[in-house]
Amino acid sequence: MELSDIREAYERIKDTIVKTPVMTSTTVDGITGCQVYFKCENFQRVGAFKFRGAFNTVSQLTKEERARGVIAHSSGNHAQALALAAEMLGVRATIVMPHNSPAVKVAATKGYGAEVVFCENTTESRASVANELMEKHGFTLIHPYNDNRIIAGAGTAALELIEEIGQLDYIFCPVGGGGLLSGTSIATKGLCPESKVIAVEPQNADDAYQSFRANKIFPSVNPNTIADGLRTQLGELTFEVIQKYVDDIILVSEQEILDAMRIFWERMKLVVEPSGAVSLAGLLKMSEDLSDCKIGVIISGGNIDLTEFFELYSKQIS
Amino acid sequence: MELSDIREAYERIKDTIVKTPVMTSTTVDGITGCQVYFKCENFQRVGAFKFRGAFNTVSQLTKEERARGVIAHSSGNHAQALALAAEMLGVRATIVMPHNSPAVKVAATKGYGAEVVFCENTTESRASVANELMEKHGFTLIHPYNDNRIIAGAGTAALELIEEIGQLDYIFCPVGGGGLLSGTSIATKGLCPESKVIAVEPQNADDAYQSFRANKIFPSVNPNTIADGLRTQLGELTFEVIQKYVDDIILVSEQEILDAMRIFWERMKLVVEPSGAVSLAGLLKMSEDLSDCKIGVIISGGNIDLTEFFELYSKQIS
Repeated sequence: MELSDIREAYERIKDTIVKTPVMTSTTVDGITGCQVYFKCENFQRVGAFKFRGAFNTVSQLTKEERARGVIAHSSGNHAQALALAAEMLGVRATIVMPHNSPAVKVAATKGYGAEVVFCENTTESRASVANELMEKHGFTLIHPYNDNRIIAGAGTAALELIEEIGQLDYIFCPVGGGGLLSGTSIATKGLCPESKVIAVEPQNADDAYQSFRANKIFPSVNPNTIADGLRTQLGELTFEVIQKYVDDIILVSEQEILDAMRIFWERMKLVVEPSGAVSLAGLLKMSEDLSDCKIGVIISGGNIDLTEFFELYSKQIS
Repeated sequence: MELSDIREAYERIKDTIVKTPVMTSTTVDGITGCQVYFKCENFQRVGAFKFRGAFNTVSQLTKEERARGVIAHSSGNHAQALALAAEMLGVRATIVMPHNSPAVKVAATKGYGAEVVFCENTTESRASVANELMEKHGFTLIHPYNDNRIIAGAGTAALELIEEIGQLDYIFCPVGGGGLLSGTSIATKGLCPESKVIAVEPQNADDAYQSFRANKIFPSVNPNTIADGLRTQLGELTFEVIQKYVDDIILVSEQEILDAMRIFWERMKLVVEPSGAVSLAGLLKMSEDLSDCKIGVIISGGNIDLTEFFELYSKQIS
């Protein structure tokens, strides 16, 4: 995988994705003493960067694969991204979700035209239900991150950011399964080799941090973080890219994630999900070591269940 | 007041304000069957359009007035806008607030360098405390909306919107005291006389609606709306402009305001305060009568107390 793969992905998806805005904040610039540019993938279709990779992947399937349909097991942003990409390309999509998934996520996935099949809330059940459907219908499984097409699509966010803003000294990116981080690091090192790529991970789900230091993939054991998009472990493809291009992986606490989220909501007026706030949390943690740098920060998404919040409000008007 | 006044205000403030982005939403375009352009003043300095008028006003004070300082009685966005504008221009600012104002607003106002003086939570107390300070220190009172400099500053948001997007068929704008609406209507009718200017007001604070129909200013009696920025009554200056340029004022329920707010937060990933969501609520209410129109919607601000929301989250991580 190299920059040219990301450029090719971009040609494939550029008329379909949202070219998300790059935002700045006098508050964050003031705190860090740097010029910070936020790539706002919370404004992407389905509210997360995942749509880039999903569309890039489905659009490359063969005619036969398209005719049979795609499948994923996910209750997160990948499910909705794949559902929408498939719908736009006229491909049948089936999503396997734990039966206790939030109703709002089930409804959103169905809203994009996908069929939802429920399973038990275990890795084994997800895989076995998906395998059964694949055997029966010939569906193609679309992995959420361990796929070069997904990685190349994810990398187009950093490509857009750097082409708009120019050379960066640092780029901060969250890491879970490593799809966004792999794409971001390939794009960044390709466009500005001097830039440092810093991955940020919740310390309560530190498997990528451990893997990076030990040079082998650690499983994600009982991750206990509000950053629900970052609970997964690295894949073989993403780990290889990360070892090659990422300069460091740093950890942030749950409170640091919440503090970063609060800056987005209160100061920048952006709805950012916990996983999406992790990169800013990392920047703030490192900011004492930085000054007058030009920094990119990837906001990965903004999908968060606001039911409780709006229930508070509903009580005020009733 | 005419378009040239707004252009002059713009020259005065353009290097200091944020040129806020114009955003679109496939969701809202889908619901309305129109092309809808949101002017995002929630991204303005201090989180609301109020900064435009405040800076335009303070920057026009005489040397003597600047030396003595400015005062306002407000616990809302005007207070913070005036505080910041004064600070940037090296002018002392004093804000009179009810003693039961939310701590977050008091802290924000002080954070912008203003002195906060507390009063009782009545119109009379606010005025008498402010008058006393004006007599003692020679402060200049900056009214939140009944002032041509404030109106001209507020109108620069619509000016930017229309200059960026081109001719509009409709523009939707919230109305409280009428400063934003006056400026918006002058700019809109000046730039595209064929556009309809639709003001939107909470039906639980319908004094502007009543005033517009009866041709005289009604007081705002016991307004009971979550749109706290729209509880005020019209001023003489704003009422005159509104009678001349506004095509209609429509009312929305509290539930309709909440539904619009939820679209901003959940679908558009924008933190918008209830007052700022009123214009979209009005558009959605009228949308059956519209089709394939080009529509501007002013989001007036995004300042909302998120303490309870983040308390919910804090419990999850502890």
